[in-house]
Amino acid sequence: MKTERTRLRRMHQRGHYDHATVYEVLDAARQCSVGYIFNGAPYVTPTIHWREGDRVYWHGSSASQMLRRSAGAEVCLTVSLLDGYVIARSGMNHSVNTRSVMLFGRAEKVADADKEAKLKTMVDGLFPGRWEMLRPATAQEIKATTILSMEIDEGAAKIRTGPPGDDEEDYALPIWAGVIPVRMVVDAPVDDPRNLPDVTPPDHVTAFRG
Amino acid sequence: MKTERTRLRRMHQRGHYDHATVYEVLDAARQCSVGYIFNGAPYVTPTIHWREGDRVYWHGSSASQMLRRSAGAEVCLTVSLLDGYVIARSGMNHSVNTRSVMLFGRAEKVADADKEAKLKTMVDGLFPGRWEMLRPATAQEIKATTILSMEIDEGAAKIRTGPPGDDEEDYALPIWAGVIPVRMVVDAPVDDPRNLPDVTPPDHVTAFRG
Repeated sequence: MKTERTRLRRMHQRGHYDHATVYEVLDAARQCSVGYIFNGAPYVTPTIHWREGDRVYWHGSSASQMLRRSAGAEVCLTVSLLDGYVIARSGMNHSVNTRSVMLFGRAEKVADADKEAKLKTMVDGLFPGRWEMLRPATAQEIKATTILSMEIDEGAAKIRTGPPGDDEEDYALPIWAGVIPVRMVVDAPVDDPRNLPDVTPPDHVTAFRG
Repeated sequence: MKTERTRLRRMHQRGHYDHATVYEVLDAARQCSVGYIFNGAPYVTPTIHWREGDRVYWHGSSASQMLRRSAGAEVCLTVSLLDGYVIARSGMNHSVNTRSVMLFGRAEKVADADKEAKLKTMVDGLFPGRWEMLRPATAQEIKATTILSMEIDEGAAKIRTGPPGDDEEDYALPIWAGVIPVRMVVDAPVDDPRNLPDVTPPDHVTAFRG
């Protein structure tokens, strides 16, 4: 397995994708997929992640099967951002422009005493200043939340950009080729119908860019 | 394991999420994450999928480690679409609006004789009529492509929509709550700089909506 992992290119052995690039893709992605093994079968669960330094975090209810099964276990955490459809002159050379990261490691539980600070980091990372505006978290809520994290150490990043790479002779064909870009946009916030009458969205909501 | 899978709710036992709902989410998602086990460790690879009836397909180079390792093996295929950020009055009740599907099954290789028809279905599914406009696929290209598929039988769908669900007493707090919707948009196609001068994008490109 060690050999296989090495073949998947340990990050520090890749000149092309250094930690900064891996961090950038991780930070740009809002959702990740966490893979783990339970009873000999593979499971993949989508969740929300965030990064602090050289660690990636995800969380959920302490009752979550995914969190209970993957705590302490080997996991593979993947993110993938779709940037465009690459339209070529042959079927073979059609592709997608994507930025993805695949990380391997052991999922570790965040200690009870550290959980509230991590949750604040997650919320404020998306919505600066929000944590202080909220009804404070209760001890019961913190207890009911499990946070896992993994060191960002072993893994690979993969990025494709630009036009199709067609076979040289196919460039003479009168076939349109190019890229259809796609991107995520943020729409105007929708008020909760139960908001108090004089409540307006704070800056971290109106300025949110995804 | 069988018991565990059952606990993950076999689709035919779920009144709420029938096959039609699962198909709708699968079809709306462009990327999936395929989880498999290799040498006792979990791997998750992002890829593009498509559906034909009650089967989901994915493909790649016949040299792909993911495809070679997962062919014939048990896999978990997950898609997740992010629809919005759910902003609540307490940290605990923040959430995300998402549509996700998790499927379990055995990945089966598509027979050589059937591969070209499947590739046509994939390309034309995104870009109707494109396959016939392309330089025809060569036998070598078809050979160099591996397609896997899985029956859509065992799995679960999960959908969250709407405003936050706050604790009843928190609705009296003067804290803005609501949803920030997000969605994928398609931008104008970008010509390959090597297109022939008189070539223009066909309808399946200009009308593409993602």
